[in-house]
Amino acid sequence: MPVNGYFITFEGTEGSGKSTQIELLAVEVRQTGRVVRLIREPGGTPIGEEIRHTLKHSPHNHDMTPETELLLMNASRAQLVREVIRPALAAGEVVLCDRFYDSTVVYQGYGRGLDLRRVREIIDFAVGETRPDLTLLLYIPLELSERRRSERLGKARPAGSADEKGPVRPEFARDRFEEADAAFFGRVEAGYREVAHAEAGRVCQIDAARPVAAVAAEIWEIVSRRLTDPPVAGHLP
Amino acid sequence: MPVNGYFITFEGTEGSGKSTQIELLAVEVRQTGRVVRLIREPGGTPIGEEIRHTLKHSPHNHDMTPETELLLMNASRAQLVREVIRPALAAGEVVLCDRFYDSTVVYQGYGRGLDLRRVREIIDFAVGETRPDLTLLLYIPLELSERRRSERLGKARPAGSADEKGPVRPEFARDRFEEADAAFFGRVEAGYREVAHAEAGRVCQIDAARPVAAVAAEIWEIVSRRLTDPPVAGHLP
Repeated sequence: MPVNGYFITFEGTEGSGKSTQIELLAVEVRQTGRVVRLIREPGGTPIGEEIRHTLKHSPHNHDMTPETELLLMNASRAQLVREVIRPALAAGEVVLCDRFYDSTVVYQGYGRGLDLRRVREIIDFAVGETRPDLTLLLYIPLELSERRRSERLGKARPAGSADEKGPVRPEFARDRFEEADAAFFGRVEAGYREVAHAEAGRVCQIDAARPVAAVAAEIWEIVSRRLTDPPVAGHLP
Repeated sequence: MPVNGYFITFEGTEGSGKSTQIELLAVEVRQTGRVVRLIREPGGTPIGEEIRHTLKHSPHNHDMTPETELLLMNASRAQLVREVIRPALAAGEVVLCDRFYDSTVVYQGYGRGLDLRRVREIIDFAVGETRPDLTLLLYIPLELSERRRSERLGKARPAGSADEKGPVRPEFARDRFEEADAAFFGRVEAGYREVAHAEAGRVCQIDAARPVAAVAAEIWEIVSRRLTDPPVAGHLP
């Protein structure tokens, strides 16, 4: 009997440790013998990576309207779902995705103030029947997120640089999401809270202000239990 | 009293002469003293031109799903509407656009078979209140469109090239829309017919199989009458 695929998404504000935790979970899952597919949004396909560049690093992107941003995000997502996620789930893989549609709901809907009904219509069109089986929402207090975000932006200038306005190291260059203001991130956090409340069966909130190993242990406890449960429903191709 | 802006879109199948006629109309309108803004879709803004490249000339685009294509088209459109079309109309300009949302309805909806209700939802999100005052649908028989399209593709190889598989001149390189099959273009034509029927007040069908000057004369007769009519409603900013 073929193994059922399982689709897990990671969500959380900046500095919540998603990247670290997703790598640690991949190691754990692989040790059970399952095939793991690690992906990120926006991007994850050749077309999606072009879109990611337009969204995050294009020299023109400070003029980008919120509507354009929403549509580009979902264009990347539509491609990722059909080119990567559906085939991987059909092959029985465990798909771990760094951000998915909840990010769009909270960043573009709650954060930028786009109409939530419209945002959800466009997400529905982009993903069709492909929904996460489990979403891990890594929660840290807003002040900690803000501090970690500032530290990350601080690294954008070479250490000991005489000229504070000197060149920015490209690997740490700010993108337009990191440059948004504190009020924006407050709305994002509130949005995550509401999403977790509305879909408590799918979204697990994790206290991510604890040490990395403690967070990883809780995540593995949740995921290992779910992966051995019989699947609720198959994935549509 | 400020002059009201006026928004005209050009539609039609490949080879219907849109590019030529839009240039000729621009000359006529400018002679009346009005400011003309010429734009094209997808594209027309720095962000939109990046999206146009991903849509039409990216090396990866043969893997592009119809859903991705629809969302990218409308991302480019959302940017164009807010960055160019609305400010131009607010300044009293006459905006001439080479393709607009009717192309999306017929190419992505009728042509690629996406659900028309979904297609219209996404267009509504992208354009908001900004709708063409007049759409000129340049009609030529399907066989003529096919012949002109083949001639255009024939120019993609240097004349007298010894090697028929030689390099393609970039300015004539095929894009993914030109490579679609005959059945696709049949559906596109039928779609244009239905759009024109459903919105007869906005969409004027022009017989574009006639000589260029005759087509231009009919277009100018229609446009000059409309431009001197009192506007039905103002444009929302």
